[in-house]
Amino acid sequence: MTLGPTIDGGRLLARLDAFAAIGGTPAGGVNRPALSVEDRAARALLARLGAARGFSVFQDAAANLFLRRSGADNDRPPFMIGSHLDSQPTGGRYDGALGTLAALEVLETLEDNGIVTASAVELVAWTNEEGSRFSPGAFGSQVHATGVFPDGWQDTVDGNGIRLADELAATLAALPEAIERPLGLPAAGYIELHIEQGPLLERQGALIGVVEGIQGTRWLEVVIEGQVAHAGTTPLADRRDAMAVAAAIIARLQATVMPSDSDARLTVGRLTLVPGAVNVIPGEVTFSIDLRHPNGGEIDRLEAEIGALAAETAASGGCRVSLRRSMDVAPAHFDDRLTGIIQSVAEKRGFPTRRMFSGAFHDALFMARLGPAAMIFVPCRNGLSHNEAEYVEPHQAIAGTQVLCDATLEAMQLGKHR
Amino acid sequence: MTLGPTIDGGRLLARLDAFAAIGGTPAGGVNRPALSVEDRAARALLARLGAARGFSVFQDAAANLFLRRSGADNDRPPFMIGSHLDSQPTGGRYDGALGTLAALEVLETLEDNGIVTASAVELVAWTNEEGSRFSPGAFGSQVHATGVFPDGWQDTVDGNGIRLADELAATLAALPEAIERPLGLPAAGYIELHIEQGPLLERQGALIGVVEGIQGTRWLEVVIEGQVAHAGTTPLADRRDAMAVAAAIIARLQATVMPSDSDARLTVGRLTLVPGAVNVIPGEVTFSIDLRHPNGGEIDRLEAEIGALAAETAASGGCRVSLRRSMDVAPAHFDDRLTGIIQSVAEKRGFPTRRMFSGAFHDALFMARLGPAAMIFVPCRNGLSHNEAEYVEPHQAIAGTQVLCDATLEAMQLGKHR
Repeated sequence: MTLGPTIDGGRLLARLDAFAAIGGTPAGGVNRPALSVEDRAARALLARLGAARGFSVFQDAAANLFLRRSGADNDRPPFMIGSHLDSQPTGGRYDGALGTLAALEVLETLEDNGIVTASAVELVAWTNEEGSRFSPGAFGSQVHATGVFPDGWQDTVDGNGIRLADELAATLAALPEAIERPLGLPAAGYIELHIEQGPLLERQGALIGVVEGIQGTRWLEVVIEGQVAHAGTTPLADRRDAMAVAAAIIARLQATVMPSDSDARLTVGRLTLVPGAVNVIPGEVTFSIDLRHPNGGEIDRLEAEIGALAAETAASGGCRVSLRRSMDVAPAHFDDRLTGIIQSVAEKRGFPTRRMFSGAFHDALFMARLGPAAMIFVPCRNGLSHNEAEYVEPHQAIAGTQVLCDATLEAMQLGKHR
Repeated sequence: MTLGPTIDGGRLLARLDAFAAIGGTPAGGVNRPALSVEDRAARALLARLGAARGFSVFQDAAANLFLRRSGADNDRPPFMIGSHLDSQPTGGRYDGALGTLAALEVLETLEDNGIVTASAVELVAWTNEEGSRFSPGAFGSQVHATGVFPDGWQDTVDGNGIRLADELAATLAALPEAIERPLGLPAAGYIELHIEQGPLLERQGALIGVVEGIQGTRWLEVVIEGQVAHAGTTPLADRRDAMAVAAAIIARLQATVMPSDSDARLTVGRLTLVPGAVNVIPGEVTFSIDLRHPNGGEIDRLEAEIGALAAETAASGGCRVSLRRSMDVAPAHFDDRLTGIIQSVAEKRGFPTRRMFSGAFHDALFMARLGPAAMIFVPCRNGLSHNEAEYVEPHQAIAGTQVLCDATLEAMQLGKHR
């Protein structure tokens, strides 16, 4: 494997600055909600930059935006690279934007070097990956992958009552130069560069995360039912204290699940008590469990273990318990060939690597259901993301983009120079 | 000690029915908020019944209502018996009403039998014991005992914005026949009959609770501060999970405090998490601890133990913790002589007794600060109170009232028959 073309690090960094200004916040972060004025401005800029290099601009009915650089055989499915442009309300400059602009840098580098690829290469900027303004997240990639819009999407409104459907129409109308394309155009493969949003790469001094898949996620809602009673007069033997039971279950899970399996994640993020008065023994407690693991069978096993523990603890506390799944997303395994290519090209460039699973959802999860997909991670300072202080060192951003370029070419098998 | 006069059980039960109709609910309970139309109707009925037997009717500036049956020497402080007439919104027929109507029955029995007591005997119906409409509870007895109204009382409003001060004025004006009396008229002693509001008497098959005092109550507010982070990407070593720490503290306290001391009561009734999203590790948790014990030194020791446990658990979980007292009411010890009299008269009547502390607040707590005070408990079914299904068997209500009569006479040392 010879080294491929060198990407233009300065151009990449300049693009990151330019896009960070669209919805930029005083604290140095980005507030660029999906399908907002800022989102439309970013799309328009991306389309202009692509058109200036002769790339064709497409958009589908979900406002997913594509820049296409033709290849030798344009009947073949294109290879896709990209990420998203929308951000969290107090988001950072790199979450999504790095992967999108890295993809642009790859297309421009291929163009600069006159490389003819076997099939077309397309940049994709997926609509509404964050889901923070309009639910659900990974909206655009989900519609692309399934061919249909999510149930109830026509009724979806944001926190100010503005309709998703109206903003989508406005976003499509704001880019009249984009060619309409049908949903779900097949891709030969998909690679996404993204910040890790966790501390592992930084901790290990690695530069490139070779992502093997996305953890499965299961959300459980646990309801403990006891009996409301007086805090002062009720002796222990008469208590059916839903909070005592909930605390015992949560404490035991926290002491066992993650300590015994470094791949597992268990979080209780939400808890409510009824009636919630200081001097009343709670009669009902509802809490959530966010459970993650790269292995779907292990998630099933953990769920069963949680159910058994909850039942036993509730019974000994005189309470009843019920559990229900409120969300269940199976693990996504990325393509071994693509993952292997990413590993090799990174090693060839001398970048320290680490194999890992993603703890967060990405558009790549939906692309993995359609065909070969993979992700490349770069570190972010202190693992911080969804935070205006999110930061990636220039050399890290450049390294990730270089690996994206090398891996894309290798995956398509480097074509002839013009 | 000879047996004293027999109270009229039928009359007592009829009175309980009559008062239960004032603010009676479809479910068979009572909704008679403090200083409401219903409360005024109950006061008016009580005053009428008293006046019909020749008892003088007084009220003070806090609308505490007194019915006075003269004794041999009316310059001596009267002996007071009574309770309250206001109820919880979904309250029962006996909480407060039993003690008040038992006191009326005692006064009428003395009158029926022509008994001359050394000093006057007064029934008192304290204003706003519950505190459910207007805070604080034990309002009337507190004003009587301290001589002053609580701080900020002029601004106190109920859930509908109605002012306590206005309702108090209306209540006083609604009983023009009552003679005004200054606050804080001294009493020679005070005995209050009340339902237990707990399961201990029923569990033991006892009829009369000989109450030795009221548990001290301390409320603590615990704040755990960790760090908000992503539920999927954050490994265990990087977590500063405020909910995990809170659960560990609560679980440990529930496993140790009450099991090792049957006099202690520890309850976590309120808990909130920030931010409260399923997929976000909580960065802050605030929860309450309601701590009770008959021994004030033990409350101090438990508070110190809680503080040490919380500090250690928080530190090992990478979090900070702060605790503050939000309420602190010292234990009240009742008068040994009165308590002994209650025990003796109950035994003389053949009623099974149990010595115990009250887990709930009562007006007697404030009276205990002024002079000899005591309480008599009777069972309530399943220990249920503050509930429309609250129930006392007729024979239990009658036994408690008989003990109140016998103990009152014994405490004043039975006077000569006319």
